[in-house]
Amino acid sequence: MMIRRTIALLVFTTSVYAQTTERLIDHTLANSRAYEHLSYITDNIGPRLSGSANAAKAVTWTTEQFRAWGIPVRNEPVMVPHWVRGVETAKLVSHNQPLVLTTLGGSIATPAAGLTADVIEVTSYEELEKLGRAKIKGKIVYYHSAFDMTMVETGRAFEAYGKAVQFRGMGASRAAEYGAVAAVIRSVATASLRSPHTGSMRYDPKQPKIPAAALATEDGDLIHRLLAKGEKVRMHLTLTPRTLPDVLSYNVIAELRGSERPEEIVLIGGHLDSWDLATGAIDNGSGCAMIMETMRMMKELGMTPKRTIRAVLYMNEENGLRGGRKYFENAAKREELHRHIAAIETDAGAAPPTGFITTYEGKSLESIEQRMRVLSRIAPMKFTSSEHTGADTSPLIDAGIPGFGLVPTPRHYFDYHHSAADTLDKVDPKALAQNTAAIAGLAWILANE
Amino acid sequence: MMIRRTIALLVFTTSVYAQTTERLIDHTLANSRAYEHLSYITDNIGPRLSGSANAAKAVTWTTEQFRAWGIPVRNEPVMVPHWVRGVETAKLVSHNQPLVLTTLGGSIATPAAGLTADVIEVTSYEELEKLGRAKIKGKIVYYHSAFDMTMVETGRAFEAYGKAVQFRGMGASRAAEYGAVAAVIRSVATASLRSPHTGSMRYDPKQPKIPAAALATEDGDLIHRLLAKGEKVRMHLTLTPRTLPDVLSYNVIAELRGSERPEEIVLIGGHLDSWDLATGAIDNGSGCAMIMETMRMMKELGMTPKRTIRAVLYMNEENGLRGGRKYFENAAKREELHRHIAAIETDAGAAPPTGFITTYEGKSLESIEQRMRVLSRIAPMKFTSSEHTGADTSPLIDAGIPGFGLVPTPRHYFDYHHSAADTLDKVDPKALAQNTAAIAGLAWILANE
Repeated sequence: MMIRRTIALLVFTTSVYAQTTERLIDHTLANSRAYEHLSYITDNIGPRLSGSANAAKAVTWTTEQFRAWGIPVRNEPVMVPHWVRGVETAKLVSHNQPLVLTTLGGSIATPAAGLTADVIEVTSYEELEKLGRAKIKGKIVYYHSAFDMTMVETGRAFEAYGKAVQFRGMGASRAAEYGAVAAVIRSVATASLRSPHTGSMRYDPKQPKIPAAALATEDGDLIHRLLAKGEKVRMHLTLTPRTLPDVLSYNVIAELRGSERPEEIVLIGGHLDSWDLATGAIDNGSGCAMIMETMRMMKELGMTPKRTIRAVLYMNEENGLRGGRKYFENAAKREELHRHIAAIETDAGAAPPTGFITTYEGKSLESIEQRMRVLSRIAPMKFTSSEHTGADTSPLIDAGIPGFGLVPTPRHYFDYHHSAADTLDKVDPKALAQNTAAIAGLAWILANE
Repeated sequence: MMIRRTIALLVFTTSVYAQTTERLIDHTLANSRAYEHLSYITDNIGPRLSGSANAAKAVTWTTEQFRAWGIPVRNEPVMVPHWVRGVETAKLVSHNQPLVLTTLGGSIATPAAGLTADVIEVTSYEELEKLGRAKIKGKIVYYHSAFDMTMVETGRAFEAYGKAVQFRGMGASRAAEYGAVAAVIRSVATASLRSPHTGSMRYDPKQPKIPAAALATEDGDLIHRLLAKGEKVRMHLTLTPRTLPDVLSYNVIAELRGSERPEEIVLIGGHLDSWDLATGAIDNGSGCAMIMETMRMMKELGMTPKRTIRAVLYMNEENGLRGGRKYFENAAKREELHRHIAAIETDAGAAPPTGFITTYEGKSLESIEQRMRVLSRIAPMKFTSSEHTGADTSPLIDAGIPGFGLVPTPRHYFDYHHSAADTLDKVDPKALAQNTAAIAGLAWILANE
């Protein structure tokens, strides 16, 4: 808390950089090459799950880009998980119907020939406990839950996600506690064309490990309807993922060194890894593209900030957060933590920007909003208080560093998120440029006030 | 043409059945069980591709339903194709990216281990011809084409489909003519979440057979962008479909026998088969449900038409039209063709009804629209001239029988059509009841005037 207060004093002085900021924003809106970067990351590199060859390629390519632009860059080593998908098929043997699903990241495999079991549905952990071992043992547990679409339609998709995703992380272990042989969730999705959404799960070391997958919402609903009719539902499930030894990978860290207080750092971060089902255009190729273009644009315009602007393309946000933790650990070792003025994260897609969430509250929040009025050149930009402004920067935020998270229009984010549909065509170049200008403008002001 | 004129005279006499028709429509809107039938067809029977066990199950179940309702029913034998999907995977080996695609119905297989070839894009058959054997030989031809979304947004999705689908049927054979080793199209789809759309293809017997598939629109666009950048695009393609011997299957034919002119027939038809990727809720479980419920409702209300109302649930519309042709052939043998007063087909989904297309034109069309005003109890219903009012009934229409085709709101039909997303959740029970009432009302009036 003390760190935050000290920094607040630094931040809330009158900006003398209004004109320069306007120039940076207008130039970015008119000449952003963020879409070009994103196009390379998605079309030419492709899916970038931690530990994969493509993830390594992404490290190399982004590093080379910064270098080619004359921006000092280094790679920060970090060991990351290496989980590989495999076959993922399922069938309702009771109804002779194929099911569409996708393995959850980190899941163990079923036997190679699959497993067959009756399916039992629950809608809460309480229900699971109530059914108990007598009813659960030997079964596949299906967690039936859906997005609150009213919240999604009213701008609160990320809030709704928190509830919708509740069974993905620990659902398997909770079911295993009562003897389940596998767990399946309904995809955490706000739209579906039989398109399942993956995501990370983890095991409680005290419970037996069982395989876990996400059904397409349509397939979850099918099981729900059949069980509601009182029918016996039996599934054959084959998942063959493998967890290979950890792999050496890297965060990519580039810097525009400050002219007056180079030891003070404004961090802008996003993650370079993506899920393997798609090319991760919105999650989070777009964030990387915004950050890369922010740095390139400042360099091209010859703009040197007073404080250092540090770009971090984190590795392994999706299934481990190892990059975010490693950055924090190393920054702490360098006794650099308290010199972070702010941590700005972009990991919420690239739809037209609406503002930022920030750890500032009360009068500090009002002040920030006033000082950032120049961002209204891009779009009406709102600043809203939030304890959580990003995953990769969360260790910094927890240590008291002021946080900012970009908020693009959230309505359709979870239509694509973690599914095979997260591809370049879902990103509008103009909106991506606007988001880039928002990141650039915010970082520039914070680095110069 | 003579048949059509004769029948026109019969049809255009004043209806004395207004009240009965109103009762039928209102009862159907209030008490339709069409969604219940559809739910069984999709959830309990599932995908119903011709020749499959599920298709046979659909014949048995629908036959049993008519029988249980006390409606005379028979099965009309027809030999149908038996094509089985198999593995369908592809990868851009030049870019280390998985592709999402689906085999086109009727396609032959690649070698079991797949084939690898450079990809060349064309947007027309003229372009293919211009490139010629020198450029095409040994390559995979990618047909880049898209729906005209302006047409789709303005109510002309089916018209736009005609153009968008142009390469699906004969694209493989046309490419094979110049030595291509495989052909892939961009899915014929008005929306995509990486969800490829299958459909029927056929081979020109004069050309070598090559495998054919439909890429998800996202994957087609990816290839298009990479080629536009001047990059070499190389694909590994594995498709293992099999064509098995033809299978004995059936059209399901149920009748409410006319009280005054039983020899005159008003036919209402839809198809019982579906593609294998999904449960065929809109294409065409919904049509079958409308037809079944029309018959059940008339029976329940004790309504006996003057002319015979004949329900035909056709087999094999999707990949052969064998059921439609067999029905026509047998009707011709029975010298029954000229006794068909009208052929009403429903095969355009179950979104809220907008009216019917019909082979009537000019004054006859105006007259029909007037006579069917009672249908406005359901929704504003428009009658529009069209040469083509349905596939299964097309042999009848070609022989001069007046045709009608139900037109539900077409906007989202091709979001789901022929893809894995054609599932029950895409159908609104209320709209299905409205469509059922429209079919029931039209059939009733035509059978009694």
